[in-house]
Amino acid sequence: MEALDYHAEERRKAEFDVEEMKIVWAGSRQAYEISDRVAHTLRKAAHAWKRIIELRLSEEEASKLRFFIDQPVFTDLHWGMFIPAIKGQGNEEQQQKWLPMAYKMQIIGCYAQTELGHGSNVQGLETTATFDPETDEFVIHSPTLTSSKWWPGGLGKVSTHALVYARLITDGQDHGVHGFIVQLRSLDDHLPLPGITVGDIGMKFGSGAYNSMDNGVLRFDHVRIPRDQMLMGVSQVTREGKFMQSDVPRQLVYGTMVYVRQKIVADASCALSRAVCIATRYSVVRRQFGSHNGGPETQVIDYKTQQSRLFPLLASAYAFRFVGEWLKWLYTDVTQRLQASDFSTLPEVHACTAGLKSVTTSATADAIEECRKLCGGHGYLSSSGLPELFAVYVPACTYEGDNVVLLLQVARFLMKTVSQLGSGKKPVGTIAYMGRSEHLLQCRCEVERAEDWLKSNVILEAFEARAARMSVTCAKNLNNFPNQEEGFAQLATDLAEAAVAHVQLIIVSKFIEKLQQDIPGKGVKRQLEILFNVYALSLLHKHLGDFVASGCITPKQSALANEQLRLLYSQVRPNAIALVDAFNYTDHYLGSVLGRYDGNVYPKLYEEAWKDPLNETVIPDGYHEYIRPILKQHIRVARL
Amino acid sequence: MEALDYHAEERRKAEFDVEEMKIVWAGSRQAYEISDRVAHTLRKAAHAWKRIIELRLSEEEASKLRFFIDQPVFTDLHWGMFIPAIKGQGNEEQQQKWLPMAYKMQIIGCYAQTELGHGSNVQGLETTATFDPETDEFVIHSPTLTSSKWWPGGLGKVSTHALVYARLITDGQDHGVHGFIVQLRSLDDHLPLPGITVGDIGMKFGSGAYNSMDNGVLRFDHVRIPRDQMLMGVSQVTREGKFMQSDVPRQLVYGTMVYVRQKIVADASCALSRAVCIATRYSVVRRQFGSHNGGPETQVIDYKTQQSRLFPLLASAYAFRFVGEWLKWLYTDVTQRLQASDFSTLPEVHACTAGLKSVTTSATADAIEECRKLCGGHGYLSSSGLPELFAVYVPACTYEGDNVVLLLQVARFLMKTVSQLGSGKKPVGTIAYMGRSEHLLQCRCEVERAEDWLKSNVILEAFEARAARMSVTCAKNLNNFPNQEEGFAQLATDLAEAAVAHVQLIIVSKFIEKLQQDIPGKGVKRQLEILFNVYALSLLHKHLGDFVASGCITPKQSALANEQLRLLYSQVRPNAIALVDAFNYTDHYLGSVLGRYDGNVYPKLYEEAWKDPLNETVIPDGYHEYIRPILKQHIRVARL
Repeated sequence: MEALDYHAEERRKAEFDVEEMKIVWAGSRQAYEISDRVAHTLRKAAHAWKRIIELRLSEEEASKLRFFIDQPVFTDLHWGMFIPAIKGQGNEEQQQKWLPMAYKMQIIGCYAQTELGHGSNVQGLETTATFDPETDEFVIHSPTLTSSKWWPGGLGKVSTHALVYARLITDGQDHGVHGFIVQLRSLDDHLPLPGITVGDIGMKFGSGAYNSMDNGVLRFDHVRIPRDQMLMGVSQVTREGKFMQSDVPRQLVYGTMVYVRQKIVADASCALSRAVCIATRYSVVRRQFGSHNGGPETQVIDYKTQQSRLFPLLASAYAFRFVGEWLKWLYTDVTQRLQASDFSTLPEVHACTAGLKSVTTSATADAIEECRKLCGGHGYLSSSGLPELFAVYVPACTYEGDNVVLLLQVARFLMKTVSQLGSGKKPVGTIAYMGRSEHLLQCRCEVERAEDWLKSNVILEAFEARAARMSVTCAKNLNNFPNQEEGFAQLATDLAEAAVAHVQLIIVSKFIEKLQQDIPGKGVKRQLEILFNVYALSLLHKHLGDFVASGCITPKQSALANEQLRLLYSQVRPNAIALVDAFNYTDHYLGSVLGRYDGNVYPKLYEEAWKDPLNETVIPDGYHEYIRPILKQHIRVARL
Repeated sequence: MEALDYHAEERRKAEFDVEEMKIVWAGSRQAYEISDRVAHTLRKAAHAWKRIIELRLSEEEASKLRFFIDQPVFTDLHWGMFIPAIKGQGNEEQQQKWLPMAYKMQIIGCYAQTELGHGSNVQGLETTATFDPETDEFVIHSPTLTSSKWWPGGLGKVSTHALVYARLITDGQDHGVHGFIVQLRSLDDHLPLPGITVGDIGMKFGSGAYNSMDNGVLRFDHVRIPRDQMLMGVSQVTREGKFMQSDVPRQLVYGTMVYVRQKIVADASCALSRAVCIATRYSVVRRQFGSHNGGPETQVIDYKTQQSRLFPLLASAYAFRFVGEWLKWLYTDVTQRLQASDFSTLPEVHACTAGLKSVTTSATADAIEECRKLCGGHGYLSSSGLPELFAVYVPACTYEGDNVVLLLQVARFLMKTVSQLGSGKKPVGTIAYMGRSEHLLQCRCEVERAEDWLKSNVILEAFEARAARMSVTCAKNLNNFPNQEEGFAQLATDLAEAAVAHVQLIIVSKFIEKLQQDIPGKGVKRQLEILFNVYALSLLHKHLGDFVASGCITPKQSALANEQLRLLYSQVRPNAIALVDAFNYTDHYLGSVLGRYDGNVYPKLYEEAWKDPLNETVIPDGYHEYIRPILKQHIRVARL
């Protein structure tokens, strides 16, 4: 008997080679095979660790395996923050001492930066690390309630050590925030050490999500640590208590930042593609209205309103994937440059990674909820997988830099670039287009027919013109303020919008670069071209005010873009199922009844319902106390 | 000793009389006093019922008390759907038989319409009610899996009866969907009656939210009910099995629909104002960056980026409140007209209530999540109150008409109105502006300076021109399709956008009408004027593409609107705390540490953390099994 697959016909219809697209999605044939081999079978962190040891996995393989635990867990911070920080900020001696223990997990570390009263403004942290020259120690202390460390994952119940960020004070002088390795709990009995108050901060969004993580609170009452537990890769304190900046340039920390942010962008594409996969598959299964003569109703994916909400998200998943791949390359590039003491690209790299982190995470958070709504009422059931996907994803908009704060950092870079345009300093990399701002400020979009909007150079110029014009307008308006800082504060909203325009241009241009690569496989490249056009034109529609008000395109051209977009949706439609199949997620990993590969949704939903603990008894708890007395009108005597 | 109140200074600064604003918000002095008297003290449904009986509350008072249970619960459906449906669709005899029992809660009813496979398309429901003339009964049956009733609140474990919507079949003929009263459970022992399969459908979004409600699944296996349990107010089946339409016009059902939707709009304003109250209060407490010379950091509410996200939501809460008040009046008006068999306003009323339901619920769902983000990381904690407020609110976008489906209904009405413009039929009520479409299609906005954007007639005309132009453009484009239905399907996205423009115009114009009323109290009216301008101009900015591409305003005028908006934010700022105080929510009802009236946030957050069950033990569960073996490297022998 053939296996049931409601989507089989959809898959047959696909106009491209889905196996090849899986490799495009995975980034390479090798990545595709690794993820396929170890995927989905191992769930818990400890078990994963056991396997990592048994299988003698490489660091990269191990991180892939941990990825499939697919629940926030203390190891994320140990491997993702504690170890990288020691590698990035410790000196050689410190690396030799701490890393082997950390790699073997003989100690478990967390990253204690955020405080109850301070998140984004790291320089405002209040915890102090005061050097005591008599004992050659630092005294770590929480001077106020708001200086309590708050949020670090893995801190609440598990970590034995923390990388604590605190104000370094030597000889009464405040040298700003530095990192210190502090032991929190005994390695014998796991009890907190003297002077340490530590616990969990309580329930968070959703019923699963980060509730699997022990985000913690931590206070210090004059806790002493040896001097050599300050991370001394960049700055040092001598035995005499003298503070010294190392000759290692501070810019080195940017390497870690690029690393972390490229991971966040990759995660965005991953979370978004999961949600899109679920919504697409269920949109094919779900039918509503449009029955003629008793025939079947219309699949909701055939409605233009569904397509115009869903397909831009599908296209975004691919767009974020490709810009994420490029960021990975950028990390390698910037690392090499830093090692060669070439800091020339740093401002541009910083702006572009900050902006991409902000734009992709905000878009993904909104998109997951949109996908949930696209599943109708059933998206609200936990068994759809979407509520918890949303709950677990949204913190990405806040952690590693609040998304609005990051946009303003991008805007500062943009304003600086504009102000230097006359100076002969040539903008490079993702900001190179600004060098052609004279042209971009006056160019006219040449679209005359809808199909002109299919040309990538036309799209690119429209996005470049929009970004350049918004930046230049902001710069002009800033000049109306006698005080630049006051102007920046007053125009912050406009500046953030200019930053978004710049970042969306980056994503668009990296998608174009991807299309210029050699992409084998029947029809694969064609699908990517369609997705590119959907991505760009749906953005154009969403931000129409920017494009038209700045004169980049005319109202008539915007109507043509809309017309072309509608045609593109029809081209995506027959390939939609195969385009999400290319993400290559197993049903187990997707964790969604609605997103099942075989589309056999309703019987499984029905089956799932009966597993609900409420259904274990026919008469519900509370019936005798609260329902029966009402029905029988014994209200006055019953104890409610 | 004076009570601690971090917001006291903010409150002192307010430029208006907050006690008077509370009355404006409550809708009347009387409503304000009632909600104040019974508010917040009684929580659970059974207890509420006990009090309702003891206090001999009127129906309106009782509904207010139930409102403060503030958790979805079976009584919502019993009182909100089951009873109104019997009142609206039952004949006199049926009302006399069932309503007294329902009012006394001797029976508990739910509203079983939605099926596993059918939500929006009510006419596609599959459950059958076949008349058996031999026994004078209907046989209620679930012919397919997808015909299982799915979602009804109160069905899963509590209700004794259900109002079941099923296809009426007499003599082999299908007469479409009608309502039937079916007993589900024994009134003696609460066990499901023969032929009834009933249970709960499982976990839903969030950890609280609708998980307090027993949304249920229900299947019928040839369940028999007497003929007189079909609701016969509108249609009847005779003893002989003859189907008859009553002379009572079918339009009467619109009355119920208007009632339910005005309640939904009122709820939107309520949920939105709660979220805004929390975010506003915490934005005043929270400080980040901008410290000079060791002074305090800047309150985040002073950042323009925070203001431009928060204040439009504050303004929306007021805007939705006022349009909700007007809908309440509309319900009275339409009820009187229906009783006088005046159906002339029905299409307009239907379009406007459908549109308002859609626009206000979508905006509110997005706004709650935006408020959560505006609280930074701490908004992610359950103790902020925002995650569960979001989880419990979002279904409003789907129930009682999917928001996109509703917009398309509005669009149909708009297209019909446009097509009849030449016919001499004069548009009335909220669509009256279309009668001036000739003017609106060519008028030019007269704004020359930023302050011109403060004039309500200028704003009104811009919104009217935008709505009219979008509708007329859609109508023109529809004419390019040989088949109107095909055209409607292809242009659905544009049509939905035209509908949004129409609905936003309604909200804007009802806000203006409110401002034209006599509003006493120092500074109250002035604040409302500012909020009106914030609401309208922020909408204009958000939908700039509509306004500029349709030529309603020029790019220059859009820049002036932005400039004015920035000035308005500065005027809202000193009044922000008092404007949310006017919502008059107690801390208990708000349920948010961040939204505390006194602003004493951080000590309370810290206190809350220690109540977390995870903190009951120092060594966490699982330490010995999962953590210690890792630390001690006993991985290979430990059983993980």
